[in-house]
Order: sequence, then structure tokens, then C-alpha cells
Amino acid sequence: MDFEGFFRSELDGLHAEGRYRVFADLERHRGHFPRATRHTADGAKDVTVWCSNDYLGMGQNPKVIEAMKNAIDHCGAGAGGTRNISGTTHYHVLLERELADLHGKEAALIFTSGYVSNWASLGTLGAKIPGLIIFSDALNHASMIEGIRHAKCGKVIWKHNDVADLEAKLAAADPKAPKLIAFESVYSMDGDIAPIKEICDLADKYGAMTYLDEVHAVGMYGPRGGGIAEREGLMDRLTVIEGTLGKAFGVMGGYIAASAALCDFIRSFASGFIFTTALPPALAAGAVASIQHLKVSQIERARHQDRVRKLRTLLDQRGIPHMPNPSHIVPVVVGDAAKCKWISDILLDNFGVYVQPINYPTVPKKTERLRITPTPLHSDADIEQLVAALHSLWSRCALARQVA
Amino acid sequence: MDFEGFFRSELDGLHAEGRYRVFADLERHRGHFPRATRHTADGAKDVTVWCSNDYLGMGQNPKVIEAMKNAIDHCGAGAGGTRNISGTTHYHVLLERELADLHGKEAALIFTSGYVSNWASLGTLGAKIPGLIIFSDALNHASMIEGIRHAKCGKVIWKHNDVADLEAKLAAADPKAPKLIAFESVYSMDGDIAPIKEICDLADKYGAMTYLDEVHAVGMYGPRGGGIAEREGLMDRLTVIEGTLGKAFGVMGGYIAASAALCDFIRSFASGFIFTTALPPALAAGAVASIQHLKVSQIERARHQDRVRKLRTLLDQRGIPHMPNPSHIVPVVVGDAAKCKWISDILLDNFGVYVQPINYPTVPKKTERLRITPTPLHSDADIEQLVAALHSLWSRCALARQVA
Repeated sequence: MDFEGFFRSELDGLHAEGRYRVFADLERHRGHFPRATRHTADGAKDVTVWCSNDYLGMGQNPKVIEAMKNAIDHCGAGAGGTRNISGTTHYHVLLERELADLHGKEAALIFTSGYVSNWASLGTLGAKIPGLIIFSDALNHASMIEGIRHAKCGKVIWKHNDVADLEAKLAAADPKAPKLIAFESVYSMDGDIAPIKEICDLADKYGAMTYLDEVHAVGMYGPRGGGIAEREGLMDRLTVIEGTLGKAFGVMGGYIAASAALCDFIRSFASGFIFTTALPPALAAGAVASIQHLKVSQIERARHQDRVRKLRTLLDQRGIPHMPNPSHIVPVVVGDAAKCKWISDILLDNFGVYVQPINYPTVPKKTERLRITPTPLHSDADIEQLVAALHSLWSRCALARQVA
Repeated sequence: MDFEGFFRSELDGLHAEGRYRVFADLERHRGHFPRATRHTADGAKDVTVWCSNDYLGMGQNPKVIEAMKNAIDHCGAGAGGTRNISGTTHYHVLLERELADLHGKEAALIFTSGYVSNWASLGTLGAKIPGLIIFSDALNHASMIEGIRHAKCGKVIWKHNDVADLEAKLAAADPKAPKLIAFESVYSMDGDIAPIKEICDLADKYGAMTYLDEVHAVGMYGPRGGGIAEREGLMDRLTVIEGTLGKAFGVMGGYIAASAALCDFIRSFASGFIFTTALPPALAAGAVASIQHLKVSQIERARHQDRVRKLRTLLDQRGIPHMPNPSHIVPVVVGDAAKCKWISDILLDNFGVYVQPINYPTVPKKTERLRITPTPLHSDADIEQLVAALHSLWSRCALARQVA
């Protein structure tokens, strides 16, 4: 077989569909986020980043920076091993305590990424609990889907955020089978929020565990940044809360918070936890500083929501349609991969506005979009410039307007 | 179902088998590696680490430390997004160029860990190339096994390092089926090395791609630290070389180096690459510094091999059996999980020697072992102290001696 030819022809297919991904080569500048320098073959140019998941700008928070640098000075670069084989440092232990406290759980367990935490945790629960059926929201993240697939356990997909459908499916399953309901709080691409309480009520009724992915909520919602479940006073009703250190907390890594026995069980049996080098101590130290800061500081969360409202108001004034939702994610649907990429390219090249086009498989085909994420660090002028640029493009390419 | 009871009873099983894992809570000290402080409920104690995969001590190399701190000062903590959505920084681009150059390949692609690089790359090749059969060495790492399992493609396990068995299996397969041979250079737990040339010869004969995991070799072997394949002048014969930034390079992360089309293919189709936050820029910067240093400096490699020889010589003098192999890994097999843990505990508590016991599922049952990894930073006195401690324990618990 001509392997090279095969790879090239598959890539040609992506080009033809307009969904070949070109990564923007950015240079962030600490203290100037969301400003960045974009490197291209033609040289460097300043841009404003509008699609970062460093939602609160904590990636440049001085406490986080200092904690990371101090940890590097103190104990060096990498962890040097798996968690079991010399890779557990005191910073990891402190981080797990901090996360357990954040979610009001007995314990927490950190992973190298949010992806791995979902994949390994759901994969292990599904593979090891005899007869487990996982009830998975239809729009769950790829990492959850892969984890459930990996488990080779029973799997029932329920309609997105639809508790009636979930109940029908729970009622139809073997009453004796152990069950787990897996879902997210804030869905990344549409920005909608799950009916957590109603799902927990069903879990109680049918004796199911609950597994809630809060990666797009931790740090940003709840009085201490514990996420949507904290805001709604529901943390104690969830069996597992999964989160990330790589979005609002500004660093990298993933975790679960749950009972001591559950965390110890995943720790002891999950291949994706056992056989991988631990996070560098400096990342753990930075994450601890970030979580501790956001447990007490409300400024970032308040300003974040204010910026989101401001952007939505200006978009509405210009009639630029955006998907309504109760979160901080502002999706502007274009509905065509090539057009979405074209708009994004012009925003980048002509307006210095960086919003990556989101296309399949991240979102379904025909719902390609610009996914805009305002941060506390976007100024009024930034927002006005973004909306003016979109307005100009909407006029140029005769895109649909929303009637005010 | 009583989920908590289930978790606890599974954990009880591990305790009963003597293979429940207790993580040592360590505090590394930059400039004093392999010395570390161990935190316990009874207070802190100094130990010498003898089981780190920071094989060359690059985790405390001043160039690596400075590069990381400079990157944090320059652009902050985390990448803030997936590689596609604002998470590619200039440091990532430079790191991929550095890795491609290291292995003499057109391109490289970085992942959040070596585990993810194997899982995502093999998983994607196996799932996407119609009819692909992966010929996998029987002792391949968990991450490769999971990747192949994930792919749901054809899979043939060949006897560890046995080219006759590999050839028999290649010959028995459909001649028209596309094939890939997946193997490692240095096997982590036994320290033996694959016959790379002979395997490449078979790949040529049967038209197969080759995928070589060099995580326990990069940085340590070859004139520029390109691994065993570089040392043996075989890099150009391998389709994919996979490596890690988290062992000899002292930081964290994984990668593949291959043709531009293959890397672009994995970049474009691998779920575990696409849907995860990019490595923090500081880790990429630290890795670049480490790789560049080890491309030209021979001191670390020479001293590393010297320390390995010295340890083996002293073990032989005391008749302490260790598995012979041509690498830097010194396995001392105990063959019983509980005894292995007991020895390790005494070494830690009474001698300040930290060697984590290695048990199932990392190694097969009945081959439980101490896996000792000397580094260039272990002194003669450190080695003498370790061997004296083992000697005392071998006498106390009447373990088998090796006849000199």
C-alpha cells in the first residue's frame, strides 16, 4: 500500500471540504493578554485573541506566575516519573487536597489533562463495574465518548439535556443493573447548561451514580469557583465532579473529585493514570495558586460576566445573530465550513481579530461557527472593534441578520 | 448497587495481594537531585531517589530551568486552548522543528504525554487505514496496547523481540493487507533492546510501516540523543519514531517524528490530539533547551553509562542478582509482590533509599522487582550505600544470591 499517498489523499479531502485546520502560530505576552503576536511566513503581526479558553486570564495572573517560577526554582522542571514511581511531589498532594476542598469531596485525583481524566475515569468505571450501564448525554465531549467506548460497557445515549428522555431510558433499563449518568454542566460549543438538579433527582430515583464534567465552568461559576453545581448548591449530590486546570485556572491538567474510595479505585486501576508521567510540580503549584485565588476573589467572575453581556448587547445592536445561552460562550453560527474559515481568515488578516473557525468534528456539519469567548481582560474598545469587524463582514458577504 | 462497597472491596483485594500502591510524597530539590525530602504523617526525611525516569537529571539543568522561567515571564502559564483553538504558541512550533531535526524526519507532532502520543497515533492509524493489521510486540507498553485496542483494527501479537516469530506472522497474513509493526527500542521494565535493523528488514520485505517507541532511549543514546535508532544509523528506516519529553529530557509531553504527510494526518484526525489543551509554552521551551543541550553534550550520556556499569559491578561483587541487559535499567527481581513491597519499605524507612516496588500490572505477577535507574548525579558513595543496603536486606530475608 502507498501509505504516503493515502495520507495525502485524506488530507486533500479535508482541504476540499474547507475544514483543513491551519494552526495560528501565536506568541502570547504576559501582562498584555488578550493581545498576542501572530507569526506567519510574511512576518509577525499583533492580534487580539477572541477564542481562548484561558477564560479569566489566570494564565498571566502574578500569583500563578510566581508560584510556577518558585516551584521550578525549588524542585526543577519535570516530575521525573509516574505518580507511583517517584513522580508524586508534595505539590501534587497539596493540589489534590485543594481540589477536594473546592468541590466539597473527600478526595481528588489529578490527570495529565481533562481529556485523560474523562477517558480514564469513565473507561475504568465502565470496564470494572460488572454490568454497568452508562447513560451518556448525546453532546458529551469526545473524551467522555472515547472513555465509554473504551470501557466496552453498556451504553445508552439520551437526548441532549432532555430529562424526560433520560428518565424513559433509565426506566427501560434492567432495574438491577448498576447505572451511571454522564453529562456536562456547560456545553462547550453551544454554551447551554444541563438541568443538574433534575438529573440528580433521576439518579436518586433509579440508584445511578452521576458524573458531571465541569471543565467549562470551574473557576467561573459558584461563590468559590466550584462550578455550576456549586452555584446551584448541588455538589454533594454528584458522585464525581470532573474538571480541568487548563481553562479558567490557566494552567494544564485535569482531575476528578469524589469519595475517597472512588478516587482510590481510579488511582489503582486506570491505565491512563498509572502509566504516564505526572504533571510537572510547577504546573501543580500554579494550579494551587490559581484555585486559591479564585476561591476568594470575585472580581474576575463579575467582570467576565459583564464582558459577555456587553458583547451580546453590541452584537444585538448590529443584528449579528448569536446563539442564546446562559453561559459565557458566545457562538456565532455561520453554518458552512469554507465560509466560516474565510470569515475567520479575513478577521485575522484584515482586522487583527483572532477567532478560530470551529468545524466538524468539533461541531456537527452545517453548524460551523465562530466561538467567541470574552475574558475580563477584553476592554470596551476590544469589543467594539470585534463587533465592527463582524458587522463589516456581515455586510460584505450578505450573511443573515437577526431582526432586533 | 452499593458502589462504595464495591470500590472498597476491590481495593481490599489489592491490599490482600500486597500490590496496593502507596505513593511516596517527595519534595525534589533543584541542584541536589537525586536527593529529595519525603513527607510522611510522622514528618519529613531525606532520601536518595533511585527510581526516577529523569534519567540524566535534565529536570534540574540550569538551561532548562532558565528557558522555562523565561517562557513563563514572557507569555504566562498555560496555552489557553487546544492546538487548533488559540493554543499553538511559537514555542510549540519551535519544539516540533527541533524534534523533526533530532530524528532526521520531515516533521514532528507533540502530544500532552507519551501515553497519549502512542494511544492517539496508533489508534488513528489503525482506525483510519482500511484493513490495517498492526503487528505488536508482546511486551509493548500499555499506551500502545490501548491505542491498538482503540483502533479496532487487525492485531497480531508477536513474541517479544523474536524476529522469526514476527516473520512467520507477517508471512501468514494477507499479502495485500496494509501492515504496521509496532515495537519499542529499550523496554522499560527488563531493559532489553529490540533488533531494530532486522525488524526494518522484515518491514521492507513485507511492505509494512514501522512504529518505534523510543521513550526510554531518546536523549540517552546516539551521538545527538536521537535514541537507539540513531546510534545504529537506522532512523531513516523507521516510519514513525515516538518519544517523550518527560524522561531523559526532564520535562513532560510526548511526540511522534515522521513524514510531513503522516504527522499532518495524525494532527488532523486524532481525537486525543485535537480535543485537548496544548502543553504550556514553558514546557515546550524547557524541552527545546533540553534537546538542544543533549544534541551536543556527551557528558551526561557518558557519565550515565559509567554509573550503570559501576552499580552493576558492585551488585555482582555482593552477589545480588540483576537482570542482564544492554541498557541503563537495572532490574533486581524479587518475584513476590508482598516481599518486594516489604523490601522497598525497609529501604525507604531504614536506609533512606527510595526504589518503588514494581508490581502487576506494570510487570507480570511473579516478576515483581526493584527497578533501579542510576543517573549521572548518583555518586560513588550513593551507589555503595545502595548496594550495602541491598546486601544487608538480602542477608536478612535470605533472598537468593547470584554465584559470581
